[in-house]
Amino acid sequence: MSATGLKSPADAREELVTLKHGAGGRAMRRLILETLAEGFAADQPEGIGLAAMDDGAALRVGDRWLVVTTDSHVVHPIFFPGGDIGRLAVAGTVNDLAMMGATEPLGLTCAVIVEEGFRRAELERIHRSMLETCREAGATIVTGDTKVMGRGELDGIVINTTGVGFADAVVSDAGLRPGDRLLVTGTIGDHGLALMARRHSLELDGDLRSDVAPINRLVAAALAAAPGAVTAMKDPTRGGLSSALHEMAEKSGVGTVLHEPALPVRPVIRSVAEMLGLDPLHIANEGKAVLGVRPDAADVVLAALRAHPLGRDAAIVGACIAEHVGRVILDTGLGRRLVGEVEGEPLPRIC
Amino acid sequence: MSATGLKSPADAREELVTLKHGAGGRAMRRLILETLAEGFAADQPEGIGLAAMDDGAALRVGDRWLVVTTDSHVVHPIFFPGGDIGRLAVAGTVNDLAMMGATEPLGLTCAVIVEEGFRRAELERIHRSMLETCREAGATIVTGDTKVMGRGELDGIVINTTGVGFADAVVSDAGLRPGDRLLVTGTIGDHGLALMARRHSLELDGDLRSDVAPINRLVAAALAAAPGAVTAMKDPTRGGLSSALHEMAEKSGVGTVLHEPALPVRPVIRSVAEMLGLDPLHIANEGKAVLGVRPDAADVVLAALRAHPLGRDAAIVGACIAEHVGRVILDTGLGRRLVGEVEGEPLPRIC
Repeated sequence: MSATGLKSPADAREELVTLKHGAGGRAMRRLILETLAEGFAADQPEGIGLAAMDDGAALRVGDRWLVVTTDSHVVHPIFFPGGDIGRLAVAGTVNDLAMMGATEPLGLTCAVIVEEGFRRAELERIHRSMLETCREAGATIVTGDTKVMGRGELDGIVINTTGVGFADAVVSDAGLRPGDRLLVTGTIGDHGLALMARRHSLELDGDLRSDVAPINRLVAAALAAAPGAVTAMKDPTRGGLSSALHEMAEKSGVGTVLHEPALPVRPVIRSVAEMLGLDPLHIANEGKAVLGVRPDAADVVLAALRAHPLGRDAAIVGACIAEHVGRVILDTGLGRRLVGEVEGEPLPRIC
Repeated sequence: MSATGLKSPADAREELVTLKHGAGGRAMRRLILETLAEGFAADQPEGIGLAAMDDGAALRVGDRWLVVTTDSHVVHPIFFPGGDIGRLAVAGTVNDLAMMGATEPLGLTCAVIVEEGFRRAELERIHRSMLETCREAGATIVTGDTKVMGRGELDGIVINTTGVGFADAVVSDAGLRPGDRLLVTGTIGDHGLALMARRHSLELDGDLRSDVAPINRLVAAALAAAPGAVTAMKDPTRGGLSSALHEMAEKSGVGTVLHEPALPVRPVIRSVAEMLGLDPLHIANEGKAVLGVRPDAADVVLAALRAHPLGRDAAIVGACIAEHVGRVILDTGLGRRLVGEVEGEPLPRIC
């Protein structure tokens, strides 16, 4: 509101929800803190609750933690190279549980909202994909809900999956300490670019496929390799590795330095991203994690990751520093520059 | 498919999802069993899982049960007399937990999908309503998710809430036994008719307001009044009391007889329903439960319900019989007739 009491165009814009508010970046975090989480802080139980804005909640149950995580999936198109909305939903929820240390899901819920006129054959295809992905993850769907909206009231289908699982020790996204090494479990940028290519019908030589996969067993192997040595985890989905690292660094009170030559990026991803003017650091992944690991355990954890089929491209890509809190610094080998924190994922409905 | 290999018009219709598949009745149950639940049965953990199609799942954790329940809310309009989508979401999930015996929610998740251009002021109003309803129920939201879909891709807003809570003893919707009394916790038909009146801008003398409310504490009082005497519970939402009773009777292997003069129906509901050619038995409620109670405990449970502000209109409305399995028989005082099981709720997007 201006001093005259009249609203500026900027004020007017802020009165409406825009696509950036769903993009996984700063705009979304502001909307949640200012609107959706407000007032609940006082009522939070022991553990990690709403205000932490982690991948889920961790609630004290006896001497263990019950991890709970929820995601709605609005991806477009619903079938894409390497996956579909069903695989994305199951993997997304299994991975969010794993990011907090619950690598054996107790159960998932599945709430489907379908547009009138949706083809049952497509629903069956999505269902089969969910069943297969659950079996890969050792998970199952224990309850669900079905709603139908009228024609034109919903673009096809959206799926919410919520997961519960126990963790003996919770790993948050806020535990990085100076000196910790930063590991990624594989190549970055694959999911977002596969979606983008499919949506814009780009004709490409290389094979662009989403990396969507449940990585709970990969994460379990990393955690078991060096108990207590993994200080923080996050899956770099919307907003990519950059968004995940900015959030982790800010919450942990550290700075991060990435060594660009160490970043695993497939050549086709690098060239397509360059063609489109995008940075793979900003592009969503759906089968990857970034881990903070105590320096003396980094090699052991890396070896455990690489021994798993989903972690064969894992790499130590950087380290945490005490300075430049909340920043992500890219060391190109020739010099250093700040990685910008974008508002969020450049593409809407990526997941 | 006909013998000629050509599809009949009926086959063609069955290839598409229609509004009836979201109406909470037989069509929806068929869709879920044939498509969405298929294949998961083999993977279910100990307890009540997907195949039971109860209000949620109950998973064995030590000597207790972890109850998990999920619902997406697509109600239209989002603000209606007596409530809004936020109150509906919280109450719906709290009540589903309570229906399985988990009357003290451990935590709820809240996943919001918003259409681009949605007004932030409305989001704030929904948020306040969720906060207030949580406090009424002694519940809180522990984690969430926010997605934005483009203009025209979603009609406004949908909200998924998933809840977790512990129960020492699980109450299913399948435990009715011959002789059990059937109790409802209050008047029926209020939610659905309030929605219908609001949507069609009916001008009415009487006050039509939704009954949407969290009834976990009411249910806790009933359970505590006569431990072990409540044999089954269900909240009569989509499809109304008729749909809930048909499902309970079928799963329990009993018949049910309702005494029409005993059914609590507000006069305004009775007259508006008559005017619209609807039966209050088929209309959705959002702050009520139907309970099966051992006959010797029915009066004690009734007294406990009536002592609570949300149960003052509670009534014993019928009983279970060994014959007419899966049926709902209405005793009008002058004679008996079968209550038809409709395909589901007559109005789309009721919850």
